[in-house]
Amino acid sequence: MSAHRLIDALATSDAVLDAFSDTAVLQAMLDFEVALARVEARAGLIPVSAADAFDAVTIAREARRSATVSIPFVAALTARVRAESPESAGYVHWGATSQDVADTALVLLLARVRPVLAAEHARLSASLRRLSDTHASTIMLGRTLMQPATPITFGLKAAVWYSTAAHGWTRLAQALDDAATVQFGGAAGTLAVLGDAGPAIGRALAHELGLHSSLPWHTDRGGLAAVVSACGIYTGALGKIARDITLLSQSEVGEVAAAGGGSSTMPHKQNPAGCAIALAAATRLPGIVAGFLAGLPQEHERAAGGWQAEWSSVSAAIETTGAALAAMAATTEALQVFPDRMRANLDATGGAIFAERAIFLLRPLVGRDAALAIVDGALEESRASGVTFGAALRAHPDAGRVLPAAQLDRIDRPEDYLGSAETFRRELVDSPQDA
Amino acid sequence: MSAHRLIDALATSDAVLDAFSDTAVLQAMLDFEVALARVEARAGLIPVSAADAFDAVTIAREARRSATVSIPFVAALTARVRAESPESAGYVHWGATSQDVADTALVLLLARVRPVLAAEHARLSASLRRLSDTHASTIMLGRTLMQPATPITFGLKAAVWYSTAAHGWTRLAQALDDAATVQFGGAAGTLAVLGDAGPAIGRALAHELGLHSSLPWHTDRGGLAAVVSACGIYTGALGKIARDITLLSQSEVGEVAAAGGGSSTMPHKQNPAGCAIALAAATRLPGIVAGFLAGLPQEHERAAGGWQAEWSSVSAAIETTGAALAAMAATTEALQVFPDRMRANLDATGGAIFAERAIFLLRPLVGRDAALAIVDGALEESRASGVTFGAALRAHPDAGRVLPAAQLDRIDRPEDYLGSAETFRRELVDSPQDA
Amino acid sequence: MSAHRLIDALATSDAVLDAFSDTAVLQAMLDFEVALARVEARAGLIPVSAADAFDAVTIAREARRSATVSIPFVAALTARVRAESPESAGYVHWGATSQDVADTALVLLLARVRPVLAAEHARLSASLRRLSDTHASTIMLGRTLMQPATPITFGLKAAVWYSTAAHGWTRLAQALDDAATVQFGGAAGTLAVLGDAGPAIGRALAHELGLHSSLPWHTDRGGLAAVVSACGIYTGALGKIARDITLLSQSEVGEVAAAGGGSSTMPHKQNPAGCAIALAAATRLPGIVAGFLAGLPQEHERAAGGWQAEWSSVSAAIETTGAALAAMAATTEALQVFPDRMRANLDATGGAIFAERAIFLLRPLVGRDAALAIVDGALEESRASGVTFGAALRAHPDAGRVLPAAQLDRIDRPEDYLGSAETFRRELVDSPQDA
Amino acid sequence: MSAHRLIDALATSDAVLDAFSDTAVLQAMLDFEVALARVEARAGLIPVSAADAFDAVTIAREARRSATVSIPFVAALTARVRAESPESAGYVHWGATSQDVADTALVLLLARVRPVLAAEHARLSASLRRLSDTHASTIMLGRTLMQPATPITFGLKAAVWYSTAAHGWTRLAQALDDAATVQFGGAAGTLAVLGDAGPAIGRALAHELGLHSSLPWHTDRGGLAAVVSACGIYTGALGKIARDITLLSQSEVGEVAAAGGGSSTMPHKQNPAGCAIALAAATRLPGIVAGFLAGLPQEHERAAGGWQAEWSSVSAAIETTGAALAAMAATTEALQVFPDRMRANLDATGGAIFAERAIFLLRPLVGRDAALAIVDGALEESRASGVTFGAALRAHPDAGRVLPAAQLDRIDRPEDYLGSAETFRRELVDSPQDA
Repeated sequence: MSAHRLIDALATSDAVLDAFSDTAVLQAMLDFEVALARVEARAGLIPVSAADAFDAVTIAREARRSATVSIPFVAALTARVRAESPESAGYVHWGATSQDVADTALVLLLARVRPVLAAEHARLSASLRRLSDTHASTIMLGRTLMQPATPITFGLKAAVWYSTAAHGWTRLAQALDDAATVQFGGAAGTLAVLGDAGPAIGRALAHELGLHSSLPWHTDRGGLAAVVSACGIYTGALGKIARDITLLSQSEVGEVAAAGGGSSTMPHKQNPAGCAIALAAATRLPGIVAGFLAGLPQEHERAAGGWQAEWSSVSAAIETTGAALAAMAATTEALQVFPDRMRANLDATGGAIFAERAIFLLRPLVGRDAALAIVDGALEESRASGVTFGAALRAHPDAGRVLPAAQLDRIDRPEDYLGSAETFRRELVDSPQDA
Repeated sequence: MSAHRLIDALATSDAVLDAFSDTAVLQAMLDFEVALARVEARAGLIPVSAADAFDAVTIAREARRSATVSIPFVAALTARVRAESPESAGYVHWGATSQDVADTALVLLLARVRPVLAAEHARLSASLRRLSDTHASTIMLGRTLMQPATPITFGLKAAVWYSTAAHGWTRLAQALDDAATVQFGGAAGTLAVLGDAGPAIGRALAHELGLHSSLPWHTDRGGLAAVVSACGIYTGALGKIARDITLLSQSEVGEVAAAGGGSSTMPHKQNPAGCAIALAAATRLPGIVAGFLAGLPQEHERAAGGWQAEWSSVSAAIETTGAALAAMAATTEALQVFPDRMRANLDATGGAIFAERAIFLLRPLVGRDAALAIVDGALEESRASGVTFGAALRAHPDAGRVLPAAQLDRIDRPEDYLGSAETFRRELVDSPQDA
Repeated sequence: MSAHRLIDALATSDAVLDAFSDTAVLQAMLDFEVALARVEARAGLIPVSAADAFDAVTIAREARRSATVSIPFVAALTARVRAESPESAGYVHWGATSQDVADTALVLLLARVRPVLAAEHARLSASLRRLSDTHASTIMLGRTLMQPATPITFGLKAAVWYSTAAHGWTRLAQALDDAATVQFGGAAGTLAVLGDAGPAIGRALAHELGLHSSLPWHTDRGGLAAVVSACGIYTGALGKIARDITLLSQSEVGEVAAAGGGSSTMPHKQNPAGCAIALAAATRLPGIVAGFLAGLPQEHERAAGGWQAEWSSVSAAIETTGAALAAMAATTEALQVFPDRMRANLDATGGAIFAERAIFLLRPLVGRDAALAIVDGALEESRASGVTFGAALRAHPDAGRVLPAAQLDRIDRPEDYLGSAETFRRELVDSPQDA
Repeated sequence: MSAHRLIDALATSDAVLDAFSDTAVLQAMLDFEVALARVEARAGLIPVSAADAFDAVTIAREARRSATVSIPFVAALTARVRAESPESAGYVHWGATSQDVADTALVLLLARVRPVLAAEHARLSASLRRLSDTHASTIMLGRTLMQPATPITFGLKAAVWYSTAAHGWTRLAQALDDAATVQFGGAAGTLAVLGDAGPAIGRALAHELGLHSSLPWHTDRGGLAAVVSACGIYTGALGKIARDITLLSQSEVGEVAAAGGGSSTMPHKQNPAGCAIALAAATRLPGIVAGFLAGLPQEHERAAGGWQAEWSSVSAAIETTGAALAAMAATTEALQVFPDRMRANLDATGGAIFAERAIFLLRPLVGRDAALAIVDGALEESRASGVTFGAALRAHPDAGRVLPAAQLDRIDRPEDYLGSAETFRRELVDSPQDA
């Protein structure tokens, strides 16, 4: 998808919009060729004057006109160099193959988009941590299988969002760091043109470009696959946050409000637009991952098909991740939280959610079956007569007989049934993550 | 992916390049609004003058500046109309919702790209049929599980390519025709703004746009899902042709040659570039299909997430299909075929591929076990001494005893062991397909 | 996934549990071989006595012991036949290849599971139609992007479920019918063993098995791909119904209740277990579709890899569909609907959902901008003071001045703002579908 | 897919066949409950006698009869315990939720299948290393985009297989190690039943089970997603090896032979059956990964849909990986290599593959354009007259004039144009990997 196309408008973000622009792609390809010429000149493989003829900034302007990939790029570059320095033109792309420049350029683009994503993740992370800390003791319903469960705090829920996103980002950041690896193997991965000098040139080239040195990985695409997979896992985490916010902001729930998108026809509408974008991203990314993985069985020394599928898949994965990330950073920064509504929704369950608590207090005293009979009786009475479960239990003769009054009185106080919520919350927001 | 981005250069084609351009998208959105105003004016719902103020050509020029989807589009359009006819501005987008214009625009884009794809398929189809007819009696090895099998003709192989592509195209063409359906439901799918007039306006709108009339399909995305799936199946068929051509054009096989791409470093190279593009498309499309299908469980009356994922997936599916199609149309048109090499490769098997024939001639005469013993003996002798299987069989005492000499003499003539190859070939190339 | 494994317990249903059991697979393979022997005997190709030796019922019992696919199957079958009729053993599998029996067996299994699925779909369909008819005038909130929109009826919502499922089933039923096609091509797709008799034998074989006659489709997998894709689209529709029910049955919404699953620890729980199973199916199926499509570029006359992936994918697609279908048939049959709660949730929006209506009544009278000013003023007043939007509008001086009193009085009556809900509902439940 | 079903016979292996059997699943669930009871008894939370009543071995036998997951499992287990020790029955599953036992059981199953996979990988790794070392100086054609490129050694090719597989395995092994994490959060992730004791019980439970301690990860599924993705990447690497072997073992190439599968009709056949299984696995796994990732946006504290999809996807991912791994371990162990044929195929290119070498020798001497003119002339002459490229170049007046005779004489000796092949090979086979 493209940064600039209406049809893909929801599948990118302002921040990553230019990460894979033609300018960015050409610059990365040039950076490879310039660095290669420099290190080869230094090694005495090509004349020093050859390297002097390369100037990324001025050449890029010309080269952008031949808008296409490695082969036309090298041809255009050679023509441009020849105009400046005929003798240098013979040394352009010396010893490299088209996949060397294309793969290294892709890796450079990933290295350059990493801090952009990191900055957005830091925004998201800060707002989630703030939400968690602010609402450390804001009590709300836990919900499992879309039904009321035992109570939690909104601080804990936001901490789970925080740490799930942090784990996802750490995985992606590490995959991006691991993939920042030069590609340099020449025609069939032996650097035959360079005689014995290949490995040293490769190391110097990596150093010049600020990348890890590496053996050629022409058909070992696992590093890129790990990046694309990590995009899928991270965006899934962002989708989890978005799903929760769409649920919590339903009018009947009303526990949070997301700064909203309007409607083309309904003036009253406040739609969770950011969440819709993040969920759209989480819907599409798994398939993009599959499309990358399907290309892994690459033929012989360099492939026909699987490799040619990669640029589109990698850029789509990163841009879709960027779309979800920007949307959720903005959504969580502006999220309004309504503690009163959280408490009201909890209270509206009539205390049935404390049935578990009653069971576990009663089981040691009367055994499993009797405990269940008492609790079921109180649940039944609560449903039938409209009193709360707590009230029904307190009125139950068997419960009153075995449970201490002090326990029975407080059995439906959510404050008393939070278990390790705050302990877990603090550990979650303190879990380490990559920058 | 974008028509105009280097990073997606291999994922589109000249023909479909502009199918989802901003101009095309805006024009389709405008066409919806213009048609809506016209039919509503005709129905007396809005004043006639309102419709007169719309002029797709001139408005599009202005509207393109607010490069974004339904809501800003409607806002920009309203402002533009107001400048010409203030009283008309109140009637823009009357009774429609943003999804109505977005969905109908998408469907119009699909209707407009259909003949572009049809023309490319016709080119492919014609060249495959020509290859099949020309080589109706060009004998070659059949190959199963990548190993030599009994003989076929290249005419039959090309006919299988032809009919597999024809089936795929017919499926896609029908899915596109079925999906050419107006979307018009208003805010929640009831067309409440239009009172009782909704269905009639909807029918007139469909007629005006040249689309099928339909009940609203705000959350019934099966029609689009069928288009995207059919892209996957069709591109899989194109990938099959591409895979076969890459295999047949290996230097050791040499039975065909594809007009090739060069190398940035190896002057002797002639790479099957078109096949690589088609295989890349067949690698990526299954994931794009999955990304669309994953969005099908759409919430309530209009969704938050699944729907917002669709534009990118549908355009990617069509463009990727277009990339594969253009590549294979060009590749098959220029394909060189080498019948002598086909015959030489068949002969190089030493006739082992006729072992099946011998078995089935011998089984009725001597039983399964004896037949197998004779044939295995001849295979063994052929491998050991380098004589052909036919020669070894003719020298085998038991074979000569039971098989008529005429049969034994001709047992390794491929011309005599083609079964229904020509019958099947003719039926395959005569199978009907959509235009 | 397996019918009988705990690990896959949620990915199948009682009804489809045995569709791909070893018994079913072996029986289908035997049916192919028996039918082949019969038609070849009738054609004089093999002795009549050969066919007599085949008895599916008794042979199946023996053959099941060699639990594996075509080749060991044919070997085991041959041994079994030999024991009964040594001279017949030579004619087992005459002229066929292993893929012929495997593909035809798969197609027979699909033909046999079709009525099982059809019966489940009929159950689902009947309960959805009943829900729709019963609640034709049960008014509820429409909801778009997970926020309140203009009113609909539950009858319309159920009708959308009905028709989305009907379209999905019709697509799947037709794909299953189209795929019910015999595979018979022999070693390399030419039926060389049968000389000229191949096509006639193929037609008779199809007739004997109750399948469509066909040219060999060894590498044209589009028919099966269409089945698998249609499973994905249909299950997506079932997932849409499940998603809606999980949302409507949230305790804060409370508009429906699904017969629930319990909890291992919380006695009060009533979980929408059927919906969770259907949503799980809709989560997994898109990837299964992608896995099938990725195998389409099959090499030469019969493939090494893509084809071998199919049995698992096709059976997983059908079983997963069956899991979702059984879950939603049961869920919708037992669904409780609470019209009062629907009305209460609608009323709780304070009438803001009628802002659209006010806009469209006011726009022709005072123009777009003035209309928006009046409506925004009333929305603001409603939010600030807690009166309903209708009351605020009625108190607004400009609204009272331009809108007739009768209109203004009824502006927030949902009964008056249903547009074509009932017209659409009736058309949706009357749309034709496959049996 | 199932270990024991014919329909899934190609999607598993003997080694992983029982990894997810009912016995294994029930044992893992029991291990969780037994460990929980033990640590809770030790902590004084439940009576010591309760723990004594659990005996995994004898209980498992009974429990297997209620073949289903957490809830019926806990019910069956409770009944079993009650029969032995009524007072203990009340303490079964104390404080845990059904997802705690299901997730922990899954993680235990993964921990148990890890050494099985490790042993198979070690077999594969050893045979690849042996192939590489044995053929360190076996020269063969490099092939890029399915066409001849500059020479490599078979040792280098096998080393690339080795290291690609090693990287894939290391990634999977680390993901499995990271995922070996207990799940223990109780109903809503707060361990409310346990008061303050939750975290300590959780740590002791992890220790008892030999798992990492962890905060609850009820909706943070990234660890499992990383396992499934790593299966996809590793199996893609295995598919790469399989693809190469199917290509090298084509009869026209004949450079290796894979121990083969037979044919049901063609006695001469030797099919690369193991490669077909591995390629089938690599075809299906990307979709399985997508199906897992699509479930990541899990609702609230525990999900309805995404979570329920996981058991089938995780077991399918591991079993499919196991199928590919077993197939390729066996295939590479028995691989026959034919160095003479490798040399013959290289020679059959007529030396055109040395055109790159000539270019790079000539460029510094005569400039890019003149170098290209000389080389193109020699390629042309070679194609036209059938002499080798080397001979044509030696006969070319300009080449002879500028290139030293010693260089020109040896220009088409592949031994002299291997660049860093051996250096790279040694580094590749010495790269570290997980055990």
